[in-house]
Amino acid sequence: MNLQFWFEFASTYSYPAVMRIDKAAAARGVSIEWRPFLLGPLFHAQQGLKDSPFNAVPVKGSYMWRDMERICERYSLPFRRPGRFPQNGLMAARITHSLGQEDRPNFVKAVYQANFVHDRDISDPQILHAAARRAGLDPLETLAAMTSEPVKQQLKDETAKAADLGIFGAPSFLTEDGELFWGNDRLEDALDWAVRGTLRPNSQN
Amino acid sequence: MNLQFWFEFASTYSYPAVMRIDKAAAARGVSIEWRPFLLGPLFHAQQGLKDSPFNAVPVKGSYMWRDMERICERYSLPFRRPGRFPQNGLMAARITHSLGQEDRPNFVKAVYQANFVHDRDISDPQILHAAARRAGLDPLETLAAMTSEPVKQQLKDETAKAADLGIFGAPSFLTEDGELFWGNDRLEDALDWAVRGTLRPNSQN
Repeated sequence: MNLQFWFEFASTYSYPAVMRIDKAAAARGVSIEWRPFLLGPLFHAQQGLKDSPFNAVPVKGSYMWRDMERICERYSLPFRRPGRFPQNGLMAARITHSLGQEDRPNFVKAVYQANFVHDRDISDPQILHAAARRAGLDPLETLAAMTSEPVKQQLKDETAKAADLGIFGAPSFLTEDGELFWGNDRLEDALDWAVRGTLRPNSQN
Repeated sequence: MNLQFWFEFASTYSYPAVMRIDKAAAARGVSIEWRPFLLGPLFHAQQGLKDSPFNAVPVKGSYMWRDMERICERYSLPFRRPGRFPQNGLMAARITHSLGQEDRPNFVKAVYQANFVHDRDISDPQILHAAARRAGLDPLETLAAMTSEPVKQQLKDETAKAADLGIFGAPSFLTEDGELFWGNDRLEDALDWAVRGTLRPNSQN
């Protein structure tokens, strides 16, 4: 079974999903397709927003930052609220698109940790260089994708594809039979659907 | 332990929460304070919206309707997409405020079922009359709250209180120690926090 995992490097709730998805997918025998896209153009086209909804609607932002603290504590994930939000994930997304699926998870995780644990600027080539090295990649070769015209176009196409699929936020998950799930807290639902074609009955009551 | 349950009669995701909360709360020994409020004024003040975000942003609406189907199937809750959305829940909210806590759950459930199962107009006094009767209340006495000046003011005050608490959507849950949780899918988290003062570690992986 396969699950498409659509994420945006600036997205807060994508961070716990990125850190959790490998283990949760392996437990169910689901393979993950890592697909970074840009959420900014979708926010603008769909909602007329020029900034994250968490900045545009401060009451939502306050809730989200507290919720992130609670969620990361639940999953024992280190988390520090970044000094700037949202960060510019364009270069990281381009690089990821230039990598094969097998090389994506480690690089992606290193970038999210740079953003949400170490409060680094993820548009800075030095930070991306370090992330590539941490992921066991050749840094210079990897960073070449930042200015590659074909990669630029590929990322634009992927972002258009996300819109076509009905995606409006991140993280989003798409099953082979076309079911879309939005949000870190729907990760398990999406994986269960990928396996069973339905949700598991609620077992928490 | 106590949990405040803030809901809006027009809110789709409030429907599964309304139907599920009693059992989930009883299983944990948590008592529920049922607090209807009006989301429209908050959407307008916080986001400049004059309609539900699910109408203002169609891609979000499409997702929500499919998600509601999946969720209601999971919980074995009957669900029919209403012909009109959002409905006007003002009268139902006023009536609920005039009731003691012990009389609220059954009336509230009857109104949500009228909306999301039977596709009835919940601003129609006849429908509210039937809901009151189904809840074992005196219908005429109950419906008097629709035009009561003190009740009108009480609901306005509650809606202002919701805004003060940082509420921006429904359903929302507030613990005694001030933690806010938003969304039907966070009901169990909110109840667990009410009991333990923290989230349960994730057990689904």
